[in-house]
Amino acid sequence: MTEQTPPHFNCTAIIGIGLIGSSLALALRERGLADRIIGIDQDADVLARATALNLIDHPAASLKQGVSDADLIIVATPVGAIDEIVAGLGKHARDGAIIIDAGSVKGVIAAAAATLPERLLFVPSHPVSGTEQSGPEAGFASLFEERWCILTPLERSDEAYGAAVDKVAALWRAVGADVDIMDAAHHDLALAVTSHLPHLIAFTLVGAADDVESVAAGEVVKYSAGGFRDFTRIAASDPVMWRDVFLNNREAVLEVLGRFSEELAVMQRAIRWGDGKALHAAFERGRALRHAIVEAGQETASPNFGRDQQTDEEPGEG
Amino acid sequence: MTEQTPPHFNCTAIIGIGLIGSSLALALRERGLADRIIGIDQDADVLARATALNLIDHPAASLKQGVSDADLIIVATPVGAIDEIVAGLGKHARDGAIIIDAGSVKGVIAAAAATLPERLLFVPSHPVSGTEQSGPEAGFASLFEERWCILTPLERSDEAYGAAVDKVAALWRAVGADVDIMDAAHHDLALAVTSHLPHLIAFTLVGAADDVESVAAGEVVKYSAGGFRDFTRIAASDPVMWRDVFLNNREAVLEVLGRFSEELAVMQRAIRWGDGKALHAAFERGRALRHAIVEAGQETASPNFGRDQQTDEEPGEG
Repeated sequence: MTEQTPPHFNCTAIIGIGLIGSSLALALRERGLADRIIGIDQDADVLARATALNLIDHPAASLKQGVSDADLIIVATPVGAIDEIVAGLGKHARDGAIIIDAGSVKGVIAAAAATLPERLLFVPSHPVSGTEQSGPEAGFASLFEERWCILTPLERSDEAYGAAVDKVAALWRAVGADVDIMDAAHHDLALAVTSHLPHLIAFTLVGAADDVESVAAGEVVKYSAGGFRDFTRIAASDPVMWRDVFLNNREAVLEVLGRFSEELAVMQRAIRWGDGKALHAAFERGRALRHAIVEAGQETASPNFGRDQQTDEEPGEG
Repeated sequence: MTEQTPPHFNCTAIIGIGLIGSSLALALRERGLADRIIGIDQDADVLARATALNLIDHPAASLKQGVSDADLIIVATPVGAIDEIVAGLGKHARDGAIIIDAGSVKGVIAAAAATLPERLLFVPSHPVSGTEQSGPEAGFASLFEERWCILTPLERSDEAYGAAVDKVAALWRAVGADVDIMDAAHHDLALAVTSHLPHLIAFTLVGAADDVESVAAGEVVKYSAGGFRDFTRIAASDPVMWRDVFLNNREAVLEVLGRFSEELAVMQRAIRWGDGKALHAAFERGRALRHAIVEAGQETASPNFGRDQQTDEEPGEG
């Protein structure tokens, strides 16, 4: 419910022009939050495409070239790149620069950010939003609308940092998100439940479907509307991004995976024993939770995600 | 690629007016395949709603009242009701009646159907199509379009039965489906992969999310856009229908569940050991399979299932 003036940045550097980087570029421009946008990416082809799409004003091949003028620096790379990027920012970013990231794991980000000099104001951020698509063409300005963005501020009590946290919260609200603040460890456990475990399960299920020799791959495709196809959406997400999530949130993922495996063993036993009561009781929980998610505006109420009734417009091409 | 005249039925009896029963009623009417439609349901309220929705012409509270005139009988109940229904049909259905079902498990249906007298022509059918919604209000005429319907004919070589199989195939094609024919055991294994295991996993994940004490239920809802919400769709499916699926396809489900658990153990070890190469290789499989499913017309290419760009029209209310 905080009413705040939207922030404004003269020079924004975006490191990594994928789905999140390009969506932020579009959202910042559309809402007048940023003047000049510099794009930084190791991949020259990505930079050329981002320039052609008018996502960025200037391409830069290195941090050294790209960040020295920036009053806002957005780290939108896979999480595994954070140490190298933080080292570069420590050398090349200007005093008072605000730095955010968009990583799905926050403990490792917080640890890296804590090594920066106090003159740099890194506010770890995680917009819980995305699609299964990747690359600069995948971005769209409304990606963050009605989604939650979680901030996990560093343990700093200085006034400059407090003001930076407020400004970053205002930035995320200005692109349409609701903002929550929590510590990094709690974030990593909560997201292990709502995001990392679901992705791991989806990747695993897609892999397991290949393994039943007597069921042809063509059959898996043809009869996927029985439920399987729902899992392939998140299993089509960027493999590098997700590798880094699991390498960097190991403990929390193993913890929630243990809970899942226990629950699965209970279901397996109920099936083996023909325990219809236990199955029915377990299956009844799904509806209430989905209803709550729809009510909270995080999901469509339409059957089949509305996939059968959509328009031809592709947001990634708008 | 079979060109066939659409079949026509004078009197159709639909047993169980849920999502599938009501969708078939609408599709049969819309395409002029059926004249009179009699609805049979144990639940008087469901019958009253189905009549008010103009899905059926006449309600009937029992098989005895409802099926004696029918030249087409559609069994659209949960699979567990099949023995009782077959017993009733054996007594009350007229000579030469064609019987189909829409159950997600076919071995148990075939076994029950084989007990019927030869004068009744039961062609087990499974339209691989559905939504997470239930009840007569959930139906819509286009549910079967561009989806596969699998027939698992009984082991009968008489001419009347062969003609009935052709007529049932033509019926499913006439409501928009493509038709495959296979034996019941293969169906039950293939669908264990593409439908039953995905549902079991989704139900289990939703249950496991409740079990991490330090993550509040509200957080599971708020951050569900990280992936979890995708699983809640099929976990919101009818608990009775799914209980019956698992009770009646035990062996195939336990078989594919075993494959899944093995694969999950491999992923767990890769996370514990920090084996980024193995994770990346596993995660790369998802994109190709999703691409194939989209290419086959079984899934939308739009990001996030197109859930962010749909129209306001609800097919269930059309």
